[in-house]
Amino acid sequence: MTIIVNLDKMKVTEFKYRFTGPLPKANGTEFRISKLKPPFGRVLQDAVIFQPDGPGFKIDGHVVRWANWEVHISFGVRAGLVISLASIFDMDMNKYRRVLYKGHLSEIIVPYMDPSEDWYYKSYLDCGEFGCGQSAVSLEPYTDCPAGAAFIDGVFAGQYGTPTKIPNVMCVFEKYAGDIMWRHTEATIPGLKITEVRPGVSLVARMVTTVGNYDYIVDYEFKPSGSIKIRVGLTGVPEVNPVEYIHISENKEEDIHGTIVADNTIGVNHDHFVTFRLDLDIDGTNNSFVRTKLVTKRTPKSVKTPRKSYWTTRPKTAKTEADARVKLGIIAEELVVVNPNRKTKHGNEVGYRLLPGSTSGPLLAQDDYPQIRAAFTNYNVWITRYNMSEVWASGLYADRSRGDDTLAVWSQRNRKIENKDIVMWYTVGFHHVPCQEDFPTMPTLSGGFELRPTNFFERNPVLKTKPINFTTARNCTTEKE
Amino acid sequence: MTIIVNLDKMKVTEFKYRFTGPLPKANGTEFRISKLKPPFGRVLQDAVIFQPDGPGFKIDGHVVRWANWEVHISFGVRAGLVISLASIFDMDMNKYRRVLYKGHLSEIIVPYMDPSEDWYYKSYLDCGEFGCGQSAVSLEPYTDCPAGAAFIDGVFAGQYGTPTKIPNVMCVFEKYAGDIMWRHTEATIPGLKITEVRPGVSLVARMVTTVGNYDYIVDYEFKPSGSIKIRVGLTGVPEVNPVEYIHISENKEEDIHGTIVADNTIGVNHDHFVTFRLDLDIDGTNNSFVRTKLVTKRTPKSVKTPRKSYWTTRPKTAKTEADARVKLGIIAEELVVVNPNRKTKHGNEVGYRLLPGSTSGPLLAQDDYPQIRAAFTNYNVWITRYNMSEVWASGLYADRSRGDDTLAVWSQRNRKIENKDIVMWYTVGFHHVPCQEDFPTMPTLSGGFELRPTNFFERNPVLKTKPINFTTARNCTTEKE
Repeated sequence: MTIIVNLDKMKVTEFKYRFTGPLPKANGTEFRISKLKPPFGRVLQDAVIFQPDGPGFKIDGHVVRWANWEVHISFGVRAGLVISLASIFDMDMNKYRRVLYKGHLSEIIVPYMDPSEDWYYKSYLDCGEFGCGQSAVSLEPYTDCPAGAAFIDGVFAGQYGTPTKIPNVMCVFEKYAGDIMWRHTEATIPGLKITEVRPGVSLVARMVTTVGNYDYIVDYEFKPSGSIKIRVGLTGVPEVNPVEYIHISENKEEDIHGTIVADNTIGVNHDHFVTFRLDLDIDGTNNSFVRTKLVTKRTPKSVKTPRKSYWTTRPKTAKTEADARVKLGIIAEELVVVNPNRKTKHGNEVGYRLLPGSTSGPLLAQDDYPQIRAAFTNYNVWITRYNMSEVWASGLYADRSRGDDTLAVWSQRNRKIENKDIVMWYTVGFHHVPCQEDFPTMPTLSGGFELRPTNFFERNPVLKTKPINFTTARNCTTEKE
Repeated sequence: MTIIVNLDKMKVTEFKYRFTGPLPKANGTEFRISKLKPPFGRVLQDAVIFQPDGPGFKIDGHVVRWANWEVHISFGVRAGLVISLASIFDMDMNKYRRVLYKGHLSEIIVPYMDPSEDWYYKSYLDCGEFGCGQSAVSLEPYTDCPAGAAFIDGVFAGQYGTPTKIPNVMCVFEKYAGDIMWRHTEATIPGLKITEVRPGVSLVARMVTTVGNYDYIVDYEFKPSGSIKIRVGLTGVPEVNPVEYIHISENKEEDIHGTIVADNTIGVNHDHFVTFRLDLDIDGTNNSFVRTKLVTKRTPKSVKTPRKSYWTTRPKTAKTEADARVKLGIIAEELVVVNPNRKTKHGNEVGYRLLPGSTSGPLLAQDDYPQIRAAFTNYNVWITRYNMSEVWASGLYADRSRGDDTLAVWSQRNRKIENKDIVMWYTVGFHHVPCQEDFPTMPTLSGGFELRPTNFFERNPVLKTKPINFTTARNCTTEKE
């Protein structure tokens, strides 16, 4: 059923039945634990996590200090969680050094792949049209964020201009995932076996934004080694379309635009493109973007070895915005934001490298309206010159936008970006062909990327990190939460 | 200095000085905590992790049971940790269903990118030449594996045929990383706000193999949702080359084949290609490999909407091995191993999807000797017909091999693979341009992939999972470990 309302006239102007068929049954769609009947799955063990001296981070207003990191955390109606002034302590220099001036979600676009009248317009700009901050939810202790997490409220101007608070909308926690920060066993010295291992712990700042049916878990993870990992987890409920049948063999359509996930229910094909804006300030404001191609070379005849080839590095600094549009996965290259004004003792430019994740890009035609509005997804990575009005990849006014104010348009100005205040834009892309496991709620599907110090420090910055003292608790009294 | 020994004659046949220069100083290369002087880095908090009822897994001989998983874990001299008979309990069917008959490391090749006489031959086949099991190390509690881990010894026939044991060479632990298994906040029902969150816990089986300078952390992670994540972490000490200078501006060579990482020390460019052999048995022995292209379509004129395009799925079952050679990152496609003999209630073929990680492939020339031996890296993914003699991607006898018995050669037989017992080969690739942070020990760099159920279950298999009861411990007495 399609109802079109003319909001200027406040009148229903069209009313159409497309399809009359059986309503998908509620049976199997319940996901509340209190309403579900046994048997339940093989239940996970209860757990206690306990830090004798409390958590390792300190929150002072909006500033979080943990290990060698100092990070400002705030909240906005459109972006949700905002990281600012992220700096890492350098033991050699005995001072904090800036990495990220500001980083946050800029847009999420979710185009569905059914071109019919009921679905064609579903290409939501989640942050621009709904507000990824406004749609963020209060986080639940122990489940949304683990034991030991600290929760922070979000306050913003609501839809009617009044102050609006979402309690516990962000959390900060230490992640003890059993990772190894670094290790080495040296077994080649006769009579001596050295094993040194440092366990990996990191600090995570998290928000969850639920834009209608989907829940996005957005994590900013800081590692003592200097890495920042940004990750988005997709969960929630997939969007579905009713059909008359229960078994795919009964289908008479040429294309069902998805997968039958339950009785009378098609999970519709779609994409998620999650775009982050990262105003990096690598050890200062003025930075450059270096694309270092790895190029195969034939071994010169002068080198007398049986080796016929090797690869070498061909660094090229992007002069303008056009030089810095990257489609991932096509060529082997290292992508590094450097500060050309700062060099290490050995003469390397200090920098942070981008370690990309998925290489998914848009598949819609370039002349299609949703893709004109989503032109910011045409490349996985863009670098722009800093401009205070360029914050939202889909444009300042995304609702009913026509694509004339997107990141892709700004990049057309082709500004100089060498040794300037520059901004990196990274899109985490997912093509989603639904499957039955996604129904009625979808196990989290994750993607993301890493920013990793590359000649930023003179040496491994966590070389002189003491192993954590782990203790075993005995004779505890425990209280259920 | 190069010394060539003729092992048949047991004689030194060549002795060459290439280069006389300053020996890199030991200063800055120490990584033992006991030898390092203050100040140390901002130290991470001590931690206690405590499960009142002990860990959630049970080990019975070589079989580990945890949540809905049952997995056999063993050890081999060449592969190290071997996963067998991994099966997941299906609540709807009230039985365990097979996913992975056998999965393990098959080979790691590490070609270095300096073609000179001293380096050209460095293209190590770590598992075939050294033994990734033989080189595996005893794991240290609390640092290599977190609190609550169980350790398992590895026993194999040693170099002289005698039984050899590496104590605690594998560990199994529950990973409480603060992940969310699934969640949804339903805010669209007037007067009712529903939030349901299930925290994510997984089971990890780990080994670390130290082949000379590099330490590889190999993790097999099982999630209650049915996903298997396989991940390799690279750490240890990079291989270095001495040079006369301290600052890059002093360099007179055209190509230094790496990065100056410390005084008189070049970290040499190289790759790591880590190949896993996965004998999948998705709900039975006979499986097929389906490549589903996502294809952009123009909206037909008959569809009266402003939408001009969408993507749809074009599944194609690989008939032979040639159809199943995949270079990742070039086209949008879903890669699914299905059991064509088993369908869901709705008629979907039960399957497991591959969610790839990095798309790095080899850059050496195809006629170069190391690449002929490493031809198994020419594609990121291969599917072969099961053959009991095809286990080691580099060939059964890798040492001094000439590339006539590799995965690439077997695949040339182009056997039929539709509805057969098939084996998936996946290579996790890294190009490594060293940076100063990698010296003297390298913070872990991770890569991997996920195998995820796709129409294997009738619905979200963890829908009916109770939230974990987290408890807060009080009044504990603690003992330092």
